[in-house]
Amino acid sequence: MEFSVKPEPENPRLTREMRGLDQDGREMQIRVVEERPMTIFLNGQEIVTVMTIRDHPEYLALGYLLNQRMLLPDDHVTAVDYDEDIETIVVRTERKTDYEEKLRKKTLTSGCAQGTVFGDLMDHIDSVQLPKDAVLKTSWLYALSHKINTQPSLYLTAGAIHGCVLCEADHPLIYMEDVGRHNAIDKIAGYMFRNKVSLDGKMFYTTGRLTSEMVLKTVQMGIPVLISRSGFTAWGVELARQTGLTLIGRAKGKRFIALAGEERIEFDADASEVAEAARRRRHGGTSAA
Amino acid sequence: MEFSVKPEPENPRLTREMRGLDQDGREMQIRVVEERPMTIFLNGQEIVTVMTIRDHPEYLALGYLLNQRMLLPDDHVTAVDYDEDIETIVVRTERKTDYEEKLRKKTLTSGCAQGTVFGDLMDHIDSVQLPKDAVLKTSWLYALSHKINTQPSLYLTAGAIHGCVLCEADHPLIYMEDVGRHNAIDKIAGYMFRNKVSLDGKMFYTTGRLTSEMVLKTVQMGIPVLISRSGFTAWGVELARQTGLTLIGRAKGKRFIALAGEERIEFDADASEVAEAARRRRHGGTSAA
Repeated sequence: MEFSVKPEPENPRLTREMRGLDQDGREMQIRVVEERPMTIFLNGQEIVTVMTIRDHPEYLALGYLLNQRMLLPDDHVTAVDYDEDIETIVVRTERKTDYEEKLRKKTLTSGCAQGTVFGDLMDHIDSVQLPKDAVLKTSWLYALSHKINTQPSLYLTAGAIHGCVLCEADHPLIYMEDVGRHNAIDKIAGYMFRNKVSLDGKMFYTTGRLTSEMVLKTVQMGIPVLISRSGFTAWGVELARQTGLTLIGRAKGKRFIALAGEERIEFDADASEVAEAARRRRHGGTSAA
Repeated sequence: MEFSVKPEPENPRLTREMRGLDQDGREMQIRVVEERPMTIFLNGQEIVTVMTIRDHPEYLALGYLLNQRMLLPDDHVTAVDYDEDIETIVVRTERKTDYEEKLRKKTLTSGCAQGTVFGDLMDHIDSVQLPKDAVLKTSWLYALSHKINTQPSLYLTAGAIHGCVLCEADHPLIYMEDVGRHNAIDKIAGYMFRNKVSLDGKMFYTTGRLTSEMVLKTVQMGIPVLISRSGFTAWGVELARQTGLTLIGRAKGKRFIALAGEERIEFDADASEVAEAARRRRHGGTSAA
């Protein structure tokens, strides 16, 4: 059940061995993440070109369109045609679509790209109701961080990549990585749509910063908890408070900071024990934690 | 001369004190970076909305338009009108402009936003000639890293922000920060345009990843050296090699990796001495380095 989708650091298509010089002028080789453009079409219309590692083109295209509200949750997708050679993917739906007007508006966000219809998301967000009874136990948070950070990944192998993980209690379920952190969250949205994954009890863990855009995407997907090892922007926090999202940042080791939706947090873990277990792991000792 | 523009961590408009809970459920306060939308117009046309900390709206607007090649280096700017209340800035030029066609094409990049006319930049890049005689001494690189990383900044105060620094030899000249790393590079472009800063001997230091887009922006600005403490993407490296840009990543302490344009590097520093000086600084000893 855990990591039913996970990073593929061993997939030769996702990284490339490159030769260069180190600080002493010695020749050396490192593995570097691939990044290629992919143009997404919805029916006859060119929507956007995204940069991606191209491990899950279909989930990325579907998730992008869903998160831009160009594909609707009850839309019937009749085909998804991916052509790697010409770097395009076409999503076809039963419903006729035309987003010419929407496409005129461009918002570039502080996060990584994809803010095309930011204003539109802002309008929509007031109508979203996040589940009030969702809970986040701090013991889950520590377990999730540990499992995710020790899972083999492109991040650990090559760096320069962001990750996003769909979680339930202390189980990381779907772990996606991509060159832009919004691709990672979009791929999860596409996966959930295709595989009819229920929202019940789900949370997000991300490696990226908690900007306004990350908050909007999470809320619009109906996920009530967002955890990151990175920091916050003020507007991200404001939007989280407005929409009732539980927002946790700087989650590293035993430390974290909650700036919104604190009422969902159940402090069941002893932070000093977590620190001690981490210390033991670092020093190679065995530990039950 | 050094840091004639520098971060303003003490500017109360750029961060906000926010209250939350820490890992033990204790109330605490942290400073969080501000992030607001700003819509850029060129003459009568709405071009884009960017998220920014809004410390240098004019430089950001000019630099964005320059780097998108909508504003040309010899354009005569007749006015720049910034209205904070309605979050817009209008750049007016003598030349009549119309980028309706260009604005239809949208490329979202792996980096942080702003890839609007990515394809267009790609076409242009072949005509750029980077100076062949530029040199990067490793002693400069170590001095730059040290000066930049110890300069008070929003990054050190609040995190969740990217920085970009225009440098010459071992002198950091213009240090800009913003929520998206491309804003930082655009603000430098705008500053250079407004203050007629010569390109001679200039280099870039960035905190962000070396993606295709960062490489393209640097090359199109005519800067022959790009240094980062973060990692690479394969396409970023490919483009740097194609255009003859010197590309250095993972510059931390004594370590760095050069994956393109290695012939410009002069290995004049002793890496073991750099490591020793850093060690002494960490342990509070005095050091001449």
